[in-house]
Amino acid sequence: MPSSSSIYEQNLEKNPANYAQLSPLSFFSRTVDIYPDMVSVVHGNRTYTWAETYSRCSQLASSLQTFGIKRGDTVAILAANTPEMFEAHFGIPMAGGVINAINTRLDAATVRFILEHGEAKIFFVDSEFAAVASDAISDMESPPRVVNIIDPLVESAAIPGNIDYEAFISTGDARFEWTLPEDEWEAIALSYTSGTTGDPKGVVTHHRGAYLNSVSMALTWNMGEQPVYLWTLPMFHCNGWCFPWTLAVNGGVSVCLRQVRVEEIFEAIRDHQVTHFCGAPIVLNTLLGAADNYKAMVDHKVRVMTAGAAPPAAVIEGMEEMGFDVTHVYGLTETYGPCTTCQWRGDLWDSLPAGERAARKARQGVRGHMLEGLMVADPESLEPVPKDGETIGEIFMRGNLVMKGYLKNPDTTEKEFRGGWFHSGDLAVWHSDGYIQIKDRSKDVIISGGENISSIEIEDTLYRHPDVLEAAVVAKFDEKWGETPCAFITLKEGRTTSVEHIISFCRDNMARFKVPKTVIFGTLPKTSTGKIQKYLLREKAENNN
Amino acid sequence: MPSSSSIYEQNLEKNPANYAQLSPLSFFSRTVDIYPDMVSVVHGNRTYTWAETYSRCSQLASSLQTFGIKRGDTVAILAANTPEMFEAHFGIPMAGGVINAINTRLDAATVRFILEHGEAKIFFVDSEFAAVASDAISDMESPPRVVNIIDPLVESAAIPGNIDYEAFISTGDARFEWTLPEDEWEAIALSYTSGTTGDPKGVVTHHRGAYLNSVSMALTWNMGEQPVYLWTLPMFHCNGWCFPWTLAVNGGVSVCLRQVRVEEIFEAIRDHQVTHFCGAPIVLNTLLGAADNYKAMVDHKVRVMTAGAAPPAAVIEGMEEMGFDVTHVYGLTETYGPCTTCQWRGDLWDSLPAGERAARKARQGVRGHMLEGLMVADPESLEPVPKDGETIGEIFMRGNLVMKGYLKNPDTTEKEFRGGWFHSGDLAVWHSDGYIQIKDRSKDVIISGGENISSIEIEDTLYRHPDVLEAAVVAKFDEKWGETPCAFITLKEGRTTSVEHIISFCRDNMARFKVPKTVIFGTLPKTSTGKIQKYLLREKAENNN
Repeated sequence: MPSSSSIYEQNLEKNPANYAQLSPLSFFSRTVDIYPDMVSVVHGNRTYTWAETYSRCSQLASSLQTFGIKRGDTVAILAANTPEMFEAHFGIPMAGGVINAINTRLDAATVRFILEHGEAKIFFVDSEFAAVASDAISDMESPPRVVNIIDPLVESAAIPGNIDYEAFISTGDARFEWTLPEDEWEAIALSYTSGTTGDPKGVVTHHRGAYLNSVSMALTWNMGEQPVYLWTLPMFHCNGWCFPWTLAVNGGVSVCLRQVRVEEIFEAIRDHQVTHFCGAPIVLNTLLGAADNYKAMVDHKVRVMTAGAAPPAAVIEGMEEMGFDVTHVYGLTETYGPCTTCQWRGDLWDSLPAGERAARKARQGVRGHMLEGLMVADPESLEPVPKDGETIGEIFMRGNLVMKGYLKNPDTTEKEFRGGWFHSGDLAVWHSDGYIQIKDRSKDVIISGGENISSIEIEDTLYRHPDVLEAAVVAKFDEKWGETPCAFITLKEGRTTSVEHIISFCRDNMARFKVPKTVIFGTLPKTSTGKIQKYLLREKAENNN
Repeated sequence: MPSSSSIYEQNLEKNPANYAQLSPLSFFSRTVDIYPDMVSVVHGNRTYTWAETYSRCSQLASSLQTFGIKRGDTVAILAANTPEMFEAHFGIPMAGGVINAINTRLDAATVRFILEHGEAKIFFVDSEFAAVASDAISDMESPPRVVNIIDPLVESAAIPGNIDYEAFISTGDARFEWTLPEDEWEAIALSYTSGTTGDPKGVVTHHRGAYLNSVSMALTWNMGEQPVYLWTLPMFHCNGWCFPWTLAVNGGVSVCLRQVRVEEIFEAIRDHQVTHFCGAPIVLNTLLGAADNYKAMVDHKVRVMTAGAAPPAAVIEGMEEMGFDVTHVYGLTETYGPCTTCQWRGDLWDSLPAGERAARKARQGVRGHMLEGLMVADPESLEPVPKDGETIGEIFMRGNLVMKGYLKNPDTTEKEFRGGWFHSGDLAVWHSDGYIQIKDRSKDVIISGGENISSIEIEDTLYRHPDVLEAAVVAKFDEKWGETPCAFITLKEGRTTSVEHIISFCRDNMARFKVPKTVIFGTLPKTSTGKIQKYLLREKAENNN
């Protein structure tokens, strides 16, 4: 505690000259000051400069206030990666509002739940998703006011009777005098996690955290000034891992992309000389499968940040062979997106064979620059596990990159923050060098004959098989062993193989007790965000006798 | 104001899981986690790893507490750029103390003033400066406790009867459990500015600002991980512009240097493959004058950050011709060191001729990533001047990179923060592209026939003259014109020239009314930090008739 008599506490108060609330909006105004004439956003035939984007965001903020948005009001948006979605990340907080970017793959009932739970006052709807949005609000008692975003790149199907985005912002003042939040702890965004069971939870993040994580991303990637960033990662996903704000830190270019299509990604990389993009391992896997004439479009160094499901080492290896530079990070919606990074130790690892390098890179790594604490510990006692690379524990984080909490859900918030740490629910080991490696989601550990088996480890091996496109492994009840691994496999197009062959391949590549006892071929059930629904596979496994 | 009814203010409180005070100490512990085995500091034959530095700093902090240091106590240090000086930047705040790094070029009376004014409890003294330190404390009523730093690289002349540094830290606990500040607004450092008149002022900075500026420096330079940083800039100068903490952000190597000697700088660049260093323009100028065999030691890209006196464009041009990459920044002790940067617009300027590129780079630029506000304005009304590149105003800053205030000096603090902006005292113009360019210190403007003349502009021209080593220009009273420029010039060794020749050179290179009416050859009087004492030159100018 500072003693009240300390000479440093006397007459040295905070004032406007020496203190400002932290907010990513400050990066925005700085970049506009420095790079007003440089490109901010490209989308089809549309190109904006930072001055234009700033002017449009000011109009947006001004109109939002005119339409009644006050500090702490929710403004929802259901949109693809477009200039309007980018603008919403600035214009809504400039008006004092909280941006609630909704997953475009959700069904109408879930969208409705989110709009009601988050109490959205205004709802921006990209015309591609007008049907779902229309269904979602059709029976609401007090539906939010709708603003239609009409994108010439898709069929227009606006919800009738509502204003469109350009008309909405055109009524706003381009010289609107926005203010920083009164307190950097104020909410900036609301993001719903797509739980596999129960209602989605509303993750609330704040200006201070968004400021720090947007900088942390720039540091993690050592991005430099004026990167050209391709929007493969949806902005509705943890606010695009804070990258709209990161690009305001370094004056980057946002190259928009409505859909993740292999051809469009490669063409964008070539046409815009893209330097950076983010994507889940499945996106990387898709690029690996592209035709050679597309792969040939990559004539310069492109840096990829990947997170989500633990990326199979084989995917990382393949990407690096193609010439991409992969940075592996890890995080959750609750941590503003990525908060750990597999910081590369070139001095130790550069000289390893490619496969071993990829295996090192597949680990989730160490805490990011601005994450205060990271540990793998016993879920009950919170006692850290030994750094032996074997003992499985839960991953815990703490500090400024952890959310405020779940909206209107004090019980779950308290539970997930128990003991002064955020409980991630992900299971990992802690290696002797301090790097963590995810072994499974809590529920996905397979306990066979008293041994813990990581389903991810088995999946990782299966992905190395030349005929395997996708693999998922779950526990299956077994009289003798308690549980045994059951593998579900989707083969690449045109490939055939046998159960016996797969099992034999596993025997050659892992400890005997880990080899799946059951192998089932077919497509894998997924959530709207592309997560494999293991609980459905578990049912299927039990019914397969 | 957040309305109390906002759904985002309910049950979403700060707690240890989701909030941490900002402090550069967090970067330190993170880097130790990730790079424990990598080199942190090199000094002569001594090399430490980050784990070793962390252990030593923990011992230092532990010993400081044992010796009575409490939160908010001042710990002074008078030392060259050595491992101990680096350690002090972590160990002192880890103990809750405030580091007061004292300029080693000061006389005993000034050091004594600083120790008394700052109320230092402990005083670390590098043996090279033992005589001055001994004089400084000889008559003090309650002198601080002295700890001698014995560096084998200099003659040992410790102050008798005191413990030495190694013995001091050896009593400390290497596993000392330090804590973050209770509030990030707590003081981390006290730095006295070397005023040309009156007593030095004690600039108080805090953990939050040190955290943000150390990151800002990493972003400004896009340093990446594990840079090799050469300590040409004294750590007593605004805590080495926060670079001890920046190197904890990115796990860099500190290559120590007791003195700025041309030969040692070039040898260090070669031997340690230095990637980055900082220095005042005078350091750069000295390197430019080095023998060719030394210059040939630079076989890789070295990045230089310079600030202080406005660097003559000719110096920047010369450095870049030698292969150095120069980043020009600007700031004051009151702003944690540099807070503006001449952000390079390659798209506009790369194609310019070398001289014009250097002229662009000689401007002080735009606000750094984490500076909230920067303007050139009328000193009285605080009304921004037009961005015309001609109208002179004072530079003002605001935000988190501005000090808490001056220690025990509320009147000056209030005066310098008047109107919600920090008054830098530096005069500049604002160019149409938003970049600022210093024209003079407030007192150094020459007003001749109603026209403002920048003494720096004249000096800049004089520096281009092949025979000129150093130049300073001041105002001289004139019956007719009010004031006229008077130039003081030091010639390069072995060179001769005439007053007439210099005046003729000026006539060829500047507007007639700016040409010095008086030219005086000789050496220039300087302060202990190498600032030219213009007030002495003004006296000399008036007496020269």
